Amino acid sequence: MERMYLEDFAAGQVFRSPTYAVTEAEILDYAKRYDPQPFHLDAEAAKSTLFGGLAASGWHTAGITMRLIVDSDFRPAWGVIGGRMEKVEWPRPVRPGDVLTVVSEVLEVVPSRSKPTQGMLRVQCTTLNQKGEPVQVIVPNIVVPRRPA
Amino acid sequence: MERMYLEDFAAGQVFRSPTYAVTEAEILDYAKRYDPQPFHLDAEAAKSTLFGGLAASGWHTAGITMRLIVDSDFRPAWGVIGGRMEKVEWPRPVRPGDVLTVVSEVLEVVPSRSKPTQGMLRVQCTTLNQKGEPVQVIVPNIVVPRRPA
Repeated sequence: MERMYLEDFAAGQVFRSPTYAVTEAEILDYAKRYDPQPFHLDAEAAKSTLFGGLAASGWHTAGITMRLIVDSDFRPAWGVIGGRMEKVEWPRPVRPGDVLTVVSEVLEVVPSRSKPTQGMLRVQCTTLNQKGEPVQVIVPNIVVPRRPA
Repeated sequence: MERMYLEDFAAGQVFRSPTYAVTEAEILDYAKRYDPQPFHLDAEAAKSTLFGGLAASGWHTAGITMRLIVDSDFRPAWGVIGGRMEKVEWPRPVRPGDVLTVVSEVLEVVPSRSKPTQGMLRVQCTTLNQKGEPVQVIVPNIVVPRRPA
């Protein structure tokens, strides 16, 4: 797979990732370490929370999304490096057994004004469950080099 | 520790977390699973990347930040539930050996117009390293119930 430079990207391009099956064991494992709250830790206790049942931590979904993007055909030459996100939204919970995939659409290609050898991509990465429902939407700004002369 | 309701929060309140020491082993462990790129996976290979050395995945920093917030005195009654982030920024890398802490400042308390029993907090959570330098800034919108009558 060729690494891609700023000149290889254009608004409207779409990259699709492989899929990722989310198990209850992985939800619990992540939660124990990084987000130990009842709705991420305990299927029984989760029933009486706002989530109405066990759900993955949003940051866990973000990690899985990153993995899927890295494993996709979206391959900026310096790697997938986003110094900032314009937004992160989790419109619905990720449940045990969900199968996730990521659709990344290039929104804008922005050459740097101050650094002639690089630019920035605004990309919308939508993580979908097996029903095609969005579970996460992020808009990273990704640093990409220009093609060497 | 008492759970807190919308009425317990006010703009300007600051909550400080415990600290968290980030090891190289944990950086590699997270990266293998969720962000397998050279600058997060391999100290030697990382030298020739944009990071100039091994750095934690930004999503790893986000997970550690969540853990620190959950372990702090910031305790909304329904838990720390943020359906969206207005932004996520990683102004500098997290390195092996860094010791992180989170300072969370309430920016705004917003009663819901449509749901009289709840409201939303806009909070800026700044993750600092041992030098006091910000390594991550997020602004979650957190759902909080009003105090029952």
